[in-house]
Amino acid sequence: MSTRAAYKHVMRIGTRWKDNDIYGHVNNVEYYSYFDTVINAYLIGSGALDIHHGAVIGLCAESHCKFLDSLAFPQGVDAGLRVAHLGKSSVRYEIGLFAEDKETCAAQGWFVHVFVDRVTRKSTPLPDALRSALAALQVEAQA
Amino acid sequence: MSTRAAYKHVMRIGTRWKDNDIYGHVNNVEYYSYFDTVINAYLIGSGALDIHHGAVIGLCAESHCKFLDSLAFPQGVDAGLRVAHLGKSSVRYEIGLFAEDKETCAAQGWFVHVFVDRVTRKSTPLPDALRSALAALQVEAQA
Amino acid sequence: MSTRAAYKHVMRIGTRWKDNDIYGHVNNVEYYSYFDTVINAYLIGSGALDIHHGAVIGLCAESHCKFLDSLAFPQGVDAGLRVAHLGKSSVRYEIGLFAEDKETCAAQGWFVHVFVDRVTRKSTPLPDALRSALAALQVEAQA
Amino acid sequence: MSTRAAYKHVMRIGTRWKDNDIYGHVNNVEYYSYFDTVINAYLIGSGALDIHHGAVIGLCAESHCKFLDSLAFPQGVDAGLRVAHLGKSSVRYEIGLFAEDKETCAAQGWFVHVFVDRVTRKSTPLPDALRSALAALQVEAQA
Repeated sequence: MSTRAAYKHVMRIGTRWKDNDIYGHVNNVEYYSYFDTVINAYLIGSGALDIHHGAVIGLCAESHCKFLDSLAFPQGVDAGLRVAHLGKSSVRYEIGLFAEDKETCAAQGWFVHVFVDRVTRKSTPLPDALRSALAALQVEAQA
Repeated sequence: MSTRAAYKHVMRIGTRWKDNDIYGHVNNVEYYSYFDTVINAYLIGSGALDIHHGAVIGLCAESHCKFLDSLAFPQGVDAGLRVAHLGKSSVRYEIGLFAEDKETCAAQGWFVHVFVDRVTRKSTPLPDALRSALAALQVEAQA
Repeated sequence: MSTRAAYKHVMRIGTRWKDNDIYGHVNNVEYYSYFDTVINAYLIGSGALDIHHGAVIGLCAESHCKFLDSLAFPQGVDAGLRVAHLGKSSVRYEIGLFAEDKETCAAQGWFVHVFVDRVTRKSTPLPDALRSALAALQVEAQA
Repeated sequence: MSTRAAYKHVMRIGTRWKDNDIYGHVNNVEYYSYFDTVINAYLIGSGALDIHHGAVIGLCAESHCKFLDSLAFPQGVDAGLRVAHLGKSSVRYEIGLFAEDKETCAAQGWFVHVFVDRVTRKSTPLPDALRSALAALQVEAQA
């Protein structure tokens, strides 16, 4: 199981009251919201993605999550991010979610972004700025 | 690719204004919300699950989604549900999401529920009512 | 307290699993999501609003909700909508939310839309199509 | 218009990718999610509210928001909180939301919590710990 150190980038995400579902813990759906928050915040913060005006945008093609432990508001969550595969016009991220006070992760997942032209929605080769930002998160393939 | 007929149970789910994200289509995260809505609505409607007081509850252990086409508010979405594997204390559902006016699905996914004791959160054999409700959705393994 | 008949337009909205919060009922925040869903679905359905390409869009300037009774997944909710005041570039809607099997409302609220130019975000006089669609929901001022 | 200093308690809330709606800014509904996040996080953090097991819980009776400026992911939001009125079994909070880099607020709102018995859902006098935690946020009535 991964630790925070297995990820190139880590972002603290605050939970919200309504993340907790009727069983008292963060609903499975919200884990995926943490995924696209850490991904897009990283890309925007690195100057590689302009979600308002950029010619190229990222769309989710596939995602996956394995739920290992519960999370609950008001805990903070550390979202770890790394790039497992960087293709011509797509990228596969791996994400680990950690309760703020735990060393082992509450969830492990992955997420595939396909980059497309904002208008035509056709896949497009990664612009250099995106490729650089993503390459900085690249790791050797994990077992 | 699956059609509605490939699913034993189909539920119409309305989209909401805020399901659309900045790129104008339903955000990937919401697809998973449609998954646990069709699953839990089916179980509650069949009388097999009491989310308020029942001794046994279902927790998500793993989920997956492949995004094939966009959906957008105010479209209706038909969520198809079937059971691919029924274990001693867990079940693996397969879900297809269809825009109301399309025959091919916008997304295909799966979702594993582990049933646990509400208090101890230890896995527990499926009660008969749950097993019956789930067996009614069972299909032969799909290629 | 209002009944369904007090509203010019009524839309059935399905609840979702994650609408229920830790206390077992629909979270207060989701009520507002039902508000902007009934409003925007009506405007889009009447052909008066094009959220993807239209030159004029509606932004929320103020909203309010009084919570009178609980709602809970998997109940359906009937959202009633009427127009209380129609100004030059804004409109004040009144909304009532009803559990599918109840005559008295679970919540009453209002919502002010200011219509603005999509690009400049400056307020703009209501185009004729929008004015007509809104006028059709107008009621005499309620006590 | 209020500044951060007008609030007794301020909490940084991170925005999420899906908070942005089709018009590129945080959806009006999410502002209310920030409201109940700052409120409940404060009460839990002060030891006054146990959302999992406590005998007394807080339900929202009424809320309101005036939207003054836009917010957008990935901005951080500072949520200011104060108590405007403390009753026998209820409290009226006032909340201001500030973009992380702005002095004037993007939204001002209020929220009424009625405290009830978790089982019977009947209103109940505020326990001492809750009263103390709330009194610490009390301000003189604002014009």
